[in-house]
Amino acid sequence: MTDQAALDQKCINTIRFLAVDAVQKARSGHPGTPMGAASMAYTLWDRFLKHNPRNPRWPNRDRFVLSPGHASMLLYALLHLTGYDLPLEELQNFRQWGSKTPGHPEHGLTPGVEATTGPLGQGFANGVGMAIAERWLADHYNRLGHKIVDHYVYAIVSDGDMQEGVTSEAASLAGTLKLGKLIYLYDDNDIQIEGPTDAVFSENVARRFLAYGWQVLGPIDGQDITAIEQAIGEAQADTGRPSLITCNTVIGYGSPAQATAKVHGEPLGEENVREAKNTLGWPQEPAFYVPDEVRHHMQRAVERGQEAEQEWQVRMQSYRDTYPQLSHELDAQLQRELPPSWDEGLGDLFHSDTKPIATRAASGQVLNYLVKRVHALTGGSADLAPSTKTILVGYGDLGWHQYWGHNMHFGVREHAMGAIVNGMALHGGVIPYAATFLTFSDYMRPPIRLAAMMGLQALYVFTHDSIGLGEDGPTHQPIEHLMNLRAVPGLTVIRPADATETAEAWKAALLNSKGPTALVFTRQKLPVLDRADFAPASGLQQGAYVLWQETEGPPEVILIGTGSEVHLALEAGMQLASEGIAVRVVSMPSWELFDRQPASYRDSVLPPPVKARVAVEAGIKLGWEHYVGLDGAAVGMEHFGASAPIEVLYERFGITAANVVAQAKILLKG
Amino acid sequence: MTDQAALDQKCINTIRFLAVDAVQKARSGHPGTPMGAASMAYTLWDRFLKHNPRNPRWPNRDRFVLSPGHASMLLYALLHLTGYDLPLEELQNFRQWGSKTPGHPEHGLTPGVEATTGPLGQGFANGVGMAIAERWLADHYNRLGHKIVDHYVYAIVSDGDMQEGVTSEAASLAGTLKLGKLIYLYDDNDIQIEGPTDAVFSENVARRFLAYGWQVLGPIDGQDITAIEQAIGEAQADTGRPSLITCNTVIGYGSPAQATAKVHGEPLGEENVREAKNTLGWPQEPAFYVPDEVRHHMQRAVERGQEAEQEWQVRMQSYRDTYPQLSHELDAQLQRELPPSWDEGLGDLFHSDTKPIATRAASGQVLNYLVKRVHALTGGSADLAPSTKTILVGYGDLGWHQYWGHNMHFGVREHAMGAIVNGMALHGGVIPYAATFLTFSDYMRPPIRLAAMMGLQALYVFTHDSIGLGEDGPTHQPIEHLMNLRAVPGLTVIRPADATETAEAWKAALLNSKGPTALVFTRQKLPVLDRADFAPASGLQQGAYVLWQETEGPPEVILIGTGSEVHLALEAGMQLASEGIAVRVVSMPSWELFDRQPASYRDSVLPPPVKARVAVEAGIKLGWEHYVGLDGAAVGMEHFGASAPIEVLYERFGITAANVVAQAKILLKG
Repeated sequence: MTDQAALDQKCINTIRFLAVDAVQKARSGHPGTPMGAASMAYTLWDRFLKHNPRNPRWPNRDRFVLSPGHASMLLYALLHLTGYDLPLEELQNFRQWGSKTPGHPEHGLTPGVEATTGPLGQGFANGVGMAIAERWLADHYNRLGHKIVDHYVYAIVSDGDMQEGVTSEAASLAGTLKLGKLIYLYDDNDIQIEGPTDAVFSENVARRFLAYGWQVLGPIDGQDITAIEQAIGEAQADTGRPSLITCNTVIGYGSPAQATAKVHGEPLGEENVREAKNTLGWPQEPAFYVPDEVRHHMQRAVERGQEAEQEWQVRMQSYRDTYPQLSHELDAQLQRELPPSWDEGLGDLFHSDTKPIATRAASGQVLNYLVKRVHALTGGSADLAPSTKTILVGYGDLGWHQYWGHNMHFGVREHAMGAIVNGMALHGGVIPYAATFLTFSDYMRPPIRLAAMMGLQALYVFTHDSIGLGEDGPTHQPIEHLMNLRAVPGLTVIRPADATETAEAWKAALLNSKGPTALVFTRQKLPVLDRADFAPASGLQQGAYVLWQETEGPPEVILIGTGSEVHLALEAGMQLASEGIAVRVVSMPSWELFDRQPASYRDSVLPPPVKARVAVEAGIKLGWEHYVGLDGAAVGMEHFGASAPIEVLYERFGITAANVVAQAKILLKG
Repeated sequence: MTDQAALDQKCINTIRFLAVDAVQKARSGHPGTPMGAASMAYTLWDRFLKHNPRNPRWPNRDRFVLSPGHASMLLYALLHLTGYDLPLEELQNFRQWGSKTPGHPEHGLTPGVEATTGPLGQGFANGVGMAIAERWLADHYNRLGHKIVDHYVYAIVSDGDMQEGVTSEAASLAGTLKLGKLIYLYDDNDIQIEGPTDAVFSENVARRFLAYGWQVLGPIDGQDITAIEQAIGEAQADTGRPSLITCNTVIGYGSPAQATAKVHGEPLGEENVREAKNTLGWPQEPAFYVPDEVRHHMQRAVERGQEAEQEWQVRMQSYRDTYPQLSHELDAQLQRELPPSWDEGLGDLFHSDTKPIATRAASGQVLNYLVKRVHALTGGSADLAPSTKTILVGYGDLGWHQYWGHNMHFGVREHAMGAIVNGMALHGGVIPYAATFLTFSDYMRPPIRLAAMMGLQALYVFTHDSIGLGEDGPTHQPIEHLMNLRAVPGLTVIRPADATETAEAWKAALLNSKGPTALVFTRQKLPVLDRADFAPASGLQQGAYVLWQETEGPPEVILIGTGSEVHLALEAGMQLASEGIAVRVVSMPSWELFDRQPASYRDSVLPPPVKARVAVEAGIKLGWEHYVGLDGAAVGMEHFGASAPIEVLYERFGITAANVVAQAKILLKG
């Protein structure tokens, strides 16, 4: 063995045993994958990965995603050893309260963690989104002699990832888009929790990926550094296809229980730790041992990273000098800054004399208005763009021949769409949006949750937002979805009542840079409220506002509506007012925005003494007690919808102004 | 053209124009796929499909699934023409209130509709579940010379289906399981809503399915009846692999706008209807025209079906004579009847002296107890069986070499698991369950919703139900999930407080034959409540019950807990009681069961005058106002969890008995 080879092995074993010791100390965790995949990860990080541990946010760094997030200690060990701000104490504090080393990697918590992973398949698809963002920015901003956006996206992916549907969706799209700078190492260890993989997964993964249009390399020995180096080199050389490198590995490599499911998800146990250290020639003591030469070798990443960034900064300066405006735009986008006066004129797009218009159509107009000002806006739909009205006219289709297109076509792949949009937001430089029917938000729940957890500015355009979609029937009519989205911590849901609120909703979404926003729009046309008669739509920014009240002071009854049902609330309100009842109509497009207001504002809109409250929303009633309590009433749904024209459905299901009036009167008599 | 060929074409054109006319009359719908896929569907139904229009529930019928449910008129036309109870008036009433011809096919509403489809990919995976159920029953009940379970599962699947991840998951599993009687016709029309398919879907589908282990036939001309016949014959001949027949078709065949996205999802328009009829030599009038010879020819399905069933009934009688006990069991399972005294002893499984036990572990014991009595119980996990405790010990693994195994291994494919379980429930003869961590219920939202919509007895075992899972951290800790599941109409969610309630929960799930049940279990151990001191666990059947109260009459304050937090509520209750406060502790394992009780019972548990109510649940607070109103309080979560040991998490997040006590006191002072 050469000196270099011996050092490499020492580095790899350091990674292995940092993981083993941390899991052992935490008395929980997953040692098997770090032990099996350490060689792959080390080779990638040591020989290829271009990153700057001193500046984890360097925009042109290569991205690395650990899709099997349960192998988090593999990543923490690499981050620690290569000089990120992750001291050894943090590794010793693995999985403890307040540590930077949680059970699964958390983006935003630990420097160098590019994506929160754990739910399988998500990391695979995030990487595809990152690679798309890279190409998009490169096409827009690189100039001859100025390759300022130019990096790879690497990931380690596991058998579990390969079985998830979201991976298939993302892989198919990555192949279609010919993402040549996407390089994935497949940790093929033949073991999963229930036992050997072939009992549930006899497919030929390599052939599947060839069918998607990927370059497939290997299988190689996942312990063979030279083979891994060579394969990554070949992957880089093929610039026209994403690459999958199949690495045969041994889960729990070195442990007496290696190559069994036993080493997957629990500490090895002291006995087996001892034996593993013996087997691999590792000192028993101390735990968390990092040999000096390993530390020295791997810390070189700091210097290399600083040099790499420095070299890039020089090129970037030359680019800035040559293309001041372009570079200014790029810098701002990377800083997640909105251009000055980006929202100018947004409030004037619609007027009371605008003909009735579906909020999805109004959204389409707003979006097309915004993209002229906010260049970073890029997105698309899961094959429903004509219906979701999300086409950016004149802004090109994103495809393998023109990555600069702003219009993405995700295909009928809602799940991957959500996860890809997360990857784009993680990459930075773009503000991505994803569009589909509200009912199909169900297909993308996992990435929505992760966007909320990571605090990503991912925008969702969910149209056809109720039984108001009519004849397509119950499979396509969302019922529980609004409430389901509201229950996700950190997700802002906005369902505007008309075109003017729609413009405000988009404004709120762009201002909300710290989390995802779901914009919920109607299929059906709605009148544009005459704001001379009603409160201004800017009230949307507070989540809910008093839209209309004839009388002064606290009302006898409050009617609360969202979206299309605000019009029913208004109609009911006017009816009640005509009968001499002091009624207030509240438009409540967003629970989250409202609940974030100070109590004084909330109480001014919904005065606590006024218990007679009727909420009306063409979705599940459950949950509305949040605002109407047990003394109020909700007009809404308690079952699935039906296939019929919209007017019939609203009437049959009792979501009518008359019913709102009736409920209000019952409460007032109560 | 031979007479037969001419008649075939006439039948096909009848199907096409029934669809075209129905969509035109409804002024909404999808004419393109019925026009393009009519030949495929006709050939299958006329030459192969073994079914009995007079008895759509004949157990040994072939199953046919229309995965692109938007092409519903194709199915309605076939059902009408082959003699199902679906008169022409229903077709003329397409997409209208109260009709049997909704926008997407609805199982249970329309005779002969085997699955509710529309959300893409679901039908594909449902068929896989049906084919598994067929093999499972065949292995269990067929005997030499008595092939009483023996049928095919056919489906038409579309480009959209092929892009969905759930399809990939299900196809991979179907290949692994070598489901030779699964035959899918792929309507490959190269068009999707946003335009030509290759812009988003350049993969080689045939190669992908070969990689999964399918037989792939074609591509053939989707209008060529002979080629279709031959391909289906070849598919049947390969008994060791599922078969995919790629049929090149033309969306909107015959319309001037054929082969464009324009004909996908809207009426052709009068002008184009006229031209299409001209092009295909179809009389302009009357609309909904069915030539006599077509009716005569296709109605032969009635006689053929009756003969086929009759022939089977004869064989079944011989089987019943030879195997009275076996056939009795099979008949009962097909009738969805539970065996007599199936639940005997269930209440005695756990005692107060049982050591603390996680409800997931208790569930495992119950499940293993039940399977000895309820033979139809069959299911598995998405690669988490050791954690979800769902292994049926001694009941074999379901695999291609032994379909009789009760233990299914879905792989890391939660979405397909949900949809496959739906297919199994649709098939009948089995009571299927699916298991994973509660947080990953997000991956299977679409099939859960469809199970609820179809009223299927699908059972979900969702374990690791809160921050109580500890160190795995926020990605794995469900927060919003309980509320999200409760919001699905028709889904029953049960979260038992201890082992005894767990047995009751399983009982409720098996009794609930008209809809899905989600059983929600802890990872962590919980004490077994001593029912001598507390109300019996059978109270679970009412959804909520007074678990403990020292005083008589209405209490001053009510503490409501679910699952593991019932123990916190009890601890808090005892503390309050020791301070002389009249306190009631309610165990509320199921909102749905409780809300279905008469008001008198509900008011007896939660007396309306008692407004001081504290709910405690380690999930999102939002929604608990349903029971505690605006005057009560909820102890729970408002954000995502964290990675740390369980005790630390409960303490840090304030989900403690002390906090429940504090909240109660605030309310009492209020």
